[in-house]
Amino acid sequence: MHRGYLQQAVELAIENVKCNGGPYGALIVRQGEIIAACANGVTRDLDPTAHAEVLAIRHACRNLQDYQLTGCVLYTSCEPCPMCLGAIYWARLESVYYACSRDDAAAAGFDDRFIYEQIALLPGRRSIPMHYLELADAGLPFNVWQQNVAKKPY
Amino acid sequence: MHRGYLQQAVELAIENVKCNGGPYGALIVRQGEIIAACANGVTRDLDPTAHAEVLAIRHACRNLQDYQLTGCVLYTSCEPCPMCLGAIYWARLESVYYACSRDDAAAAGFDDRFIYEQIALLPGRRSIPMHYLELADAGLPFNVWQQNVAKKPY
Repeated sequence: MHRGYLQQAVELAIENVKCNGGPYGALIVRQGEIIAACANGVTRDLDPTAHAEVLAIRHACRNLQDYQLTGCVLYTSCEPCPMCLGAIYWARLESVYYACSRDDAAAAGFDDRFIYEQIALLPGRRSIPMHYLELADAGLPFNVWQQNVAKKPY
Repeated sequence: MHRGYLQQAVELAIENVKCNGGPYGALIVRQGEIIAACANGVTRDLDPTAHAEVLAIRHACRNLQDYQLTGCVLYTSCEPCPMCLGAIYWARLESVYYACSRDDAAAAGFDDRFIYEQIALLPGRRSIPMHYLELADAGLPFNVWQQNVAKKPY
């Protein structure tokens, strides 16, 4: 069962390359039903966040009219990059199955493994430096959020 | 200059909470021009990937008609979560400035720090388990990609 869905994700990836897209595909399944099936859309959509997994999460949420995907399983042709891993946690998926690794992606010229290595560094030491700046009211958004009784936690 | 843009990101976050949205805001600036200014849209858009930084990257790419943001700087009210950090690398931004930390976010009930901790674990040991499955043609998407002379590398 898992193998069949994963095979479909790989086939989506192959088809996408034939249309000059990135070599990645992903499926989201809930209780035996395919909720979303997407291939990488970065160059087509002019959107660096349009990885197959992110697109599948967005489509599945639209289909279910929810911003969480509890009880859903993701099948992806390659190990999720850190961006997609974060998206998987925010969407609260149940589990993930993948067919290639970050090393396979690196061998094909993609930055997945490099980004995993960058995360472990101190923010200011990364190749894209991330600087903390002290602002007097930096904490105000969180304060207002915690006091807002009408908020939708996510 | 950096402080002024960062202050605007914080103000976007505060305004967003007043509309019952998440307490985050982000700006993308290139050569003194604001290319995108977005607040968190997770609950509004029913999209768990609609963090302020991701939305700002998508909008900036649409405005510049490109899938990379070389030479652009991101200002964000809070340290980017792993999803946004990945998006920042894929977009090839120049640098990032932030006003709150992952610990501030955790204190307000958000999972940023937790996700940073999860990344360091072996895939199968994470709270959302990620399983490698061996497939005969798993490497085919990357092979076809490398042979495709019409591909757009990203």
